[in-house]
Amino acid sequence: MRTNPEVLAVDLGGTNIRLGIVTPQGRLARRRRGRIPPPSTPEALYDSLVTRITGFIGSGGATARLGAVAVGFAGPTSSASGYVYCAPNLGQLEGLQMATHLERRLGVPVLVANDADCAAIGEYWRGAGRGAKSLFLFTLGTGVGGSLVIDGRLWEGERGIAGEIGHTVIALGGPRCSCGNQGCLEALVSATAIVRDYVAARKIKPPAESRITAKMVFDRARGGDKVAQRVIAGAAGALGVGIANVFNLLDPELILIGGGVSRAGSRLIGPAVKQAGQLLFAPLREYLRVRRTSLGDDAALLGAARLAFERILT
Amino acid sequence: MRTNPEVLAVDLGGTNIRLGIVTPQGRLARRRRGRIPPPSTPEALYDSLVTRITGFIGSGGATARLGAVAVGFAGPTSSASGYVYCAPNLGQLEGLQMATHLERRLGVPVLVANDADCAAIGEYWRGAGRGAKSLFLFTLGTGVGGSLVIDGRLWEGERGIAGEIGHTVIALGGPRCSCGNQGCLEALVSATAIVRDYVAARKIKPPAESRITAKMVFDRARGGDKVAQRVIAGAAGALGVGIANVFNLLDPELILIGGGVSRAGSRLIGPAVKQAGQLLFAPLREYLRVRRTSLGDDAALLGAARLAFERILT
Repeated sequence: MRTNPEVLAVDLGGTNIRLGIVTPQGRLARRRRGRIPPPSTPEALYDSLVTRITGFIGSGGATARLGAVAVGFAGPTSSASGYVYCAPNLGQLEGLQMATHLERRLGVPVLVANDADCAAIGEYWRGAGRGAKSLFLFTLGTGVGGSLVIDGRLWEGERGIAGEIGHTVIALGGPRCSCGNQGCLEALVSATAIVRDYVAARKIKPPAESRITAKMVFDRARGGDKVAQRVIAGAAGALGVGIANVFNLLDPELILIGGGVSRAGSRLIGPAVKQAGQLLFAPLREYLRVRRTSLGDDAALLGAARLAFERILT
Repeated sequence: MRTNPEVLAVDLGGTNIRLGIVTPQGRLARRRRGRIPPPSTPEALYDSLVTRITGFIGSGGATARLGAVAVGFAGPTSSASGYVYCAPNLGQLEGLQMATHLERRLGVPVLVANDADCAAIGEYWRGAGRGAKSLFLFTLGTGVGGSLVIDGRLWEGERGIAGEIGHTVIALGGPRCSCGNQGCLEALVSATAIVRDYVAARKIKPPAESRITAKMVFDRARGGDKVAQRVIAGAAGALGVGIANVFNLLDPELILIGGGVSRAGSRLIGPAVKQAGQLLFAPLREYLRVRRTSLGDDAALLGAARLAFERILT
């Protein structure tokens, strides 16, 4: 075992990849980001990943103290086995033995965990969740993830696949979700959902349609676009239902909201918290604490690394 | 401390009360049941409870080995403090210091916990949950409760109020719930909801309306009543959504279904599990395990007693 080892942390989202080096003290350095092409097969995904990681190492990204690689992955994943049950935002790839495959090709220990789980541990370790005994994190991005920390430990579920708040149904018969069901939280508050609703309300046709992003909708709302404001208000209402559902079911000390979509800030989070409060039993409202995450994109990198420090490098 | 003490366990639902004596080995004896009038004030509720409990003791219900009274209560309750945040099925009584009050009047240690939490621990200890490392229990009655057991311990939340699956919203804009919101799971699968839907579909008017019970609707469905069958199928579909939501969010080893409404058996649980399976990511379906509870009304009595043994009588 190397003394004072470092972890190469990787955050692999639906379309983006980020890398960085994390020290045992939780310092994150030498960040790099990029895009990965939508993979057609698990092998294509591994190839992309290995190319990115070895490229990062080769260009001086890693040091002689590299002890492990830790990957936060956007799909139901068991961090105990590194098994990815499915990859709904990566062309529905199923059954990836990701940790095993990457270990074989990289020659260092590899931990793979769900990206929202990593972000929750990252925020708990170094961010907005410091000091909370329990927390639930909503990660709002292309999809919607979730993660539960109880007494400082992830509750990943019996198979390591807990936290899929994005695929809990809150609106029976509602809009179609990427998973095929209707009315999932993800189908109402993800970046995808916000773009879909704005494009529909503005009757924007291809090819202009493909250039609309959630960030543009937020920018337009800020600039006074009433349609954009209405779309975001709808997403905020649905997020409020999700927050109330989590509070009612799990009663965590703290609820955190992170991910790209959360950067909309007050226009999304404020109304969502108000809606959540209205849905709670009146005597319980005072206990609702909701905060934005503070680490941004670094949370998943830090949390993935923290899990590797705890489980591989101790 | 008495050697080999026994616990007087009380299960206090929306309208019914049950009492019994539990030994440290989990034997339940001298059960008694009755009804309590809807209380107008906390004091009226305490009076009813104390009358029932002392009557039970006085009539030979308890023994010289009585070590504690343990109450399972139908509302958000902290078992650590015995504080009842609110009592939505008892005329919206709020802020009951139930354990403190009962202790003062009964002269023995009193533990008060949420009834669904008690039932979950009861099933984990002596029933259908034996051997499971984690489980989630749905309790379907006048209302809908829930409870989460992780690694053999209740997760009651930071304030002791977790598990309110009945008031998670699954159908935005759906039927009105007892809590005032719309589309809560409880508004779709409780006994109350089943009666409401049947009465509406059959256009049954007062006074006949007030005589319809969920049990009658189940009996009629069994007897071929197509309207009753349709109402129960609707409830089963909603329960399936609730099951899928819990599985996606918490990934427990086992999901249990208990409470009076669950006695409808195969007509409710079978379609609910089928619906839940269809809502899960295909690779995760094989992990879904749903069972009916096996202890019936005894679960809450046994579980309340178990908590008292663990926390008061060790």
